[in-house]
Amino acid sequence: MWMKARVRVPGPQEWYGSDILKAVVLLSGGIDSSTTMAIAGSMGYECYALTIRYGQIHDREVMSARNIAVSLKVKEHRVIELPEGMFTGSALLGDGEIPLDRDVGSTEGIPDTYVPARNLIFLSIASGWAEVLDADAVFIGATAMDYSGYPDCRPEFLRSFQSTLDLATRKGVQGGSIKVLAPLLDLKKSMIIQKGIDLGLDLSLTWSCYQGGEKACGRCDSCLFRLRGFKELGLKDPVKYEKV
Amino acid sequence: MWMKARVRVPGPQEWYGSDILKAVVLLSGGIDSSTTMAIAGSMGYECYALTIRYGQIHDREVMSARNIAVSLKVKEHRVIELPEGMFTGSALLGDGEIPLDRDVGSTEGIPDTYVPARNLIFLSIASGWAEVLDADAVFIGATAMDYSGYPDCRPEFLRSFQSTLDLATRKGVQGGSIKVLAPLLDLKKSMIIQKGIDLGLDLSLTWSCYQGGEKACGRCDSCLFRLRGFKELGLKDPVKYEKV
Repeated sequence: MWMKARVRVPGPQEWYGSDILKAVVLLSGGIDSSTTMAIAGSMGYECYALTIRYGQIHDREVMSARNIAVSLKVKEHRVIELPEGMFTGSALLGDGEIPLDRDVGSTEGIPDTYVPARNLIFLSIASGWAEVLDADAVFIGATAMDYSGYPDCRPEFLRSFQSTLDLATRKGVQGGSIKVLAPLLDLKKSMIIQKGIDLGLDLSLTWSCYQGGEKACGRCDSCLFRLRGFKELGLKDPVKYEKV
Repeated sequence: MWMKARVRVPGPQEWYGSDILKAVVLLSGGIDSSTTMAIAGSMGYECYALTIRYGQIHDREVMSARNIAVSLKVKEHRVIELPEGMFTGSALLGDGEIPLDRDVGSTEGIPDTYVPARNLIFLSIASGWAEVLDADAVFIGATAMDYSGYPDCRPEFLRSFQSTLDLATRKGVQGGSIKVLAPLLDLKKSMIIQKGIDLGLDLSLTWSCYQGGEKACGRCDSCLFRLRGFKELGLKDPVKYEKV
């Protein structure tokens, strides 16, 4: 149930008695994580945004994350940096091993942009902070639709992570749970964009492009998915592109 | 089976055909993780040591980890630092919230030195590196005996983490597995010390004390467990203490 995306989500008050519910939200600055944060806010959560840098090519995403965090009035925004070179072997990291413009889907159906164990690491760090904050939930903007090749975006991974987390934390041992929530999991990009718009998210602040230019490249996988999403809705993407 | 500690461990060649087996070993510089590394080496693994700093009070442990890594001839030793303040709420972090000399066992049986989701975060990061290296295993010196209050040292946590990891990684999707190995899990401290000695580990290089002095304090939980272990074996700890 916790993985289903819905227009109306059951109020978190049904799960906990506390007046103020807190959530750590993984925020990259893209459409998915920004919409996820807007959803968390709309569910009544006091949001703590967590941006994890892992040797991306550019700072553009972090700037977007900062702007989104401010616009959505989060309680706190932390940006933490994982050491460069930890995750070599992915096209996202600018180590020159795999060209960024290679087609989606490498051998075995896992995209080249896959970062080893990324969501596992991100969710673990977010959960650690959630436990410190005595937060009720961790939100991640994972989606199984557009990027079905990422193993750590699959519902079975998230379900398993929830079980592991319940065994790892003080809250879990005491009979509670830090809920791992992925409200976008079953949504395609156009539906996510629509959801963001419905919640008043300023999509011009988001950034999806893998490249670090002034304008989005319009050619990388992430730009292509985003552009297709806007096109399906008959809308114009407010972000500027080099060429569309 | 993978969690049982044995004097003779079945050769990893039984699991994989590769000539050189690689393992990422979480190395703090204490007796447990150092012995774990010695075990990994004795099993034929080429070891990649990973030390994760998380706002400890002192650098003493990192120095010990470095010395152990050199003495055990690891292929590579990486020290990564997690941001300070990420894990406030534990007595290990010097944030002054909880005194270090408080008795073992707080409310609900979880020690004050518990760091939120620590093993989950450490194992996740180690697994990410393991996937980059195409390593076969991740070793952790978790032990359920002396510190039974830590939720993330329990066999059920490690078992669950293994399942989650298999769902998160490219290797797992392709039918393989990065094995999570905790060879000390059922051993008490004296048995770990004996195991280290048997494997030729230089225990004078290890450091267990929670404090950052020239000599070990001899009073913190970690010193007390260590001293008791040596005492049970009728041996003298080669590390110097302020008072014993």
